[in-house]
Amino acid sequence: MQSLRVELGERAYAIFIGEGLLSNAELILPQLDLPRVAIVTNTTVAPLYLERLAGALRVRGVEVISVVLPDGERYKDGTTLNLIYDALLERRCDRKTALIALGGGVVGDLAGFAAATYMRGIPFIQVPTTLLAQVDSSIGGKTGINHPLGKNMIGAFYQPRLVLADTQVLETLPPRELSAGMAEVIKHGLIRDAAFFAWLEQNMEKLLACDQDALAHAVRRCCEIKAAVVAEDERETGVRALLNFGHTFGHAIESGLGYGKWLHGEAVAAGMVMAADLSRRMSLVAPADVERIIALLKRAGLPVAPPDISAERLLELMGVDKKAEGGKLRFILLDGIGAASIRADVPDGALHQALALSAA
Amino acid sequence: MQSLRVELGERAYAIFIGEGLLSNAELILPQLDLPRVAIVTNTTVAPLYLERLAGALRVRGVEVISVVLPDGERYKDGTTLNLIYDALLERRCDRKTALIALGGGVVGDLAGFAAATYMRGIPFIQVPTTLLAQVDSSIGGKTGINHPLGKNMIGAFYQPRLVLADTQVLETLPPRELSAGMAEVIKHGLIRDAAFFAWLEQNMEKLLACDQDALAHAVRRCCEIKAAVVAEDERETGVRALLNFGHTFGHAIESGLGYGKWLHGEAVAAGMVMAADLSRRMSLVAPADVERIIALLKRAGLPVAPPDISAERLLELMGVDKKAEGGKLRFILLDGIGAASIRADVPDGALHQALALSAA
Repeated sequence: MQSLRVELGERAYAIFIGEGLLSNAELILPQLDLPRVAIVTNTTVAPLYLERLAGALRVRGVEVISVVLPDGERYKDGTTLNLIYDALLERRCDRKTALIALGGGVVGDLAGFAAATYMRGIPFIQVPTTLLAQVDSSIGGKTGINHPLGKNMIGAFYQPRLVLADTQVLETLPPRELSAGMAEVIKHGLIRDAAFFAWLEQNMEKLLACDQDALAHAVRRCCEIKAAVVAEDERETGVRALLNFGHTFGHAIESGLGYGKWLHGEAVAAGMVMAADLSRRMSLVAPADVERIIALLKRAGLPVAPPDISAERLLELMGVDKKAEGGKLRFILLDGIGAASIRADVPDGALHQALALSAA
Repeated sequence: MQSLRVELGERAYAIFIGEGLLSNAELILPQLDLPRVAIVTNTTVAPLYLERLAGALRVRGVEVISVVLPDGERYKDGTTLNLIYDALLERRCDRKTALIALGGGVVGDLAGFAAATYMRGIPFIQVPTTLLAQVDSSIGGKTGINHPLGKNMIGAFYQPRLVLADTQVLETLPPRELSAGMAEVIKHGLIRDAAFFAWLEQNMEKLLACDQDALAHAVRRCCEIKAAVVAEDERETGVRALLNFGHTFGHAIESGLGYGKWLHGEAVAAGMVMAADLSRRMSLVAPADVERIIALLKRAGLPVAPPDISAERLLELMGVDKKAEGGKLRFILLDGIGAASIRADVPDGALHQALALSAA
């Protein structure tokens, strides 16, 4: 088992990473105000892992309520959020009941937002079961739901008390989901750590085969990078925006296709290629580096070009993206592999050419 | 004009109190990240004061969007909250658009929760137009909406950047609403300041006649008391709960009657009498003090007994109240006029007798 700490002052918390942590209730008990938890999960994860976690808690005397949601990005909305509120109220959960998210990014975002807003905030624990959630969405306190007019438009910054990443559960993850998570793994190398990107080039096949040591290393390195960025800028007023590399384009793709057609990581992969292409057009990054990025994403089983959506439609979709500021779009661009920066000086021509990849 | 500061570290903010502040845009401008605001108000307040505030901002170059909600506690729900989200998204408001709540407690709670959760939090300013909002709900960062199973069950702690209390607008407040606000004014004296309670006994008629000096004094003293309590315990883990004096009973009354039948302040007035009666039964407070409380509430035009709801029903309703903790009810009781404390040791008999007032 490995551990690290997200340094956020009074909101600091630990991340544990390793095989079989799901049944290690000892890690959870110290975080509870009272021996009572509500586990929020979905119909896919529940048959696989709910009882393993709930049983481990019950034998330690913890009362466990479970809330099983439908599975999929399209359920990340106000209606599903209300299912959680209703269940908590019907079971008379109070402010000291802890909420545990057991699942991927959608479950974590929904459950986290429910925890942030139920009775103005209750204790929250993340138990991510997808690669994407383990390396990205479970860390840093972003929670929320989608709105018909935009992704993640309603939400809160709300830190968990603990993140428990059991790498063993990734063995049951569908290959497409493992690949989608790999997009965020690659992103961490791209924006902050050239050596990790090179390590990924050496170890991609091991990771896709769920080699536990390789997974633990990758999850840990991503958590370290993300934790450092979040500790520096919890509420995304500056450097944290770098974590959105590829996401402005990615969100537009997801929104244009309708949420759930492409997985989030797939849209981000295509978005990262577009952002890298835009960086190349602005002479910030070498053509050979763009080729390395495309090659690694391909090996990870990810799309490297966006679907057929017009440049105009993508621009329109990016207009309501929350990274827009005062009407002016800002982009996260690469300054080479391992370094990124935020730019508001993107020429219209280069932007349109990068977007027009989608018409190809 | 008077001012004070709510000391909350990096979330500290100022409260300004005085006649005619509504058209004083100079107080608002320094709090804006960009010259763009969305004013959330309701159909009652809009014709009276929206243009005064919006016009003052517009002549200073601020772009103003307005969102006019239906008026009433029964609209403090997810449906109305979505009206705000929809308007903000349709007008492409970004993270730097400030949201201004212009109205009473319902508008402030709804708009504050929208500000807390729109794009995970945007700048927020309170311009309370009722006495209740000026002395209580606009200060301290409690925001939220009701759920069919309980009042204020969904919400967030989210501090405004500024509170602007224009005492002149209270002149157009219906007498019943002015009285309802007076319940919270009296509460502040009861829990924390015997001298202020005595001042209220001397000045109640002046206040009800909207004497501006008297109002400014009362609003200021309530704000000082509330600001001190909130600074000590922002997230209500301890002393802040004292501000809920009368509210456990009050919420049960509101919930039992259906939200909106009684005004919040009216339910709190009856709730304070019940809490004072319970304190007397536990020999914490003298019968003569209970009489003083009842007399002052009556002079303020407030109910001093609950409506006809059975003790059993009230108990049931209090069971889902968020002040419940680990299944055990805690009560805020008086230790005399000007002092209150939180108690979990209330004998069932005394509680039932205090509740049975309602059957009288």
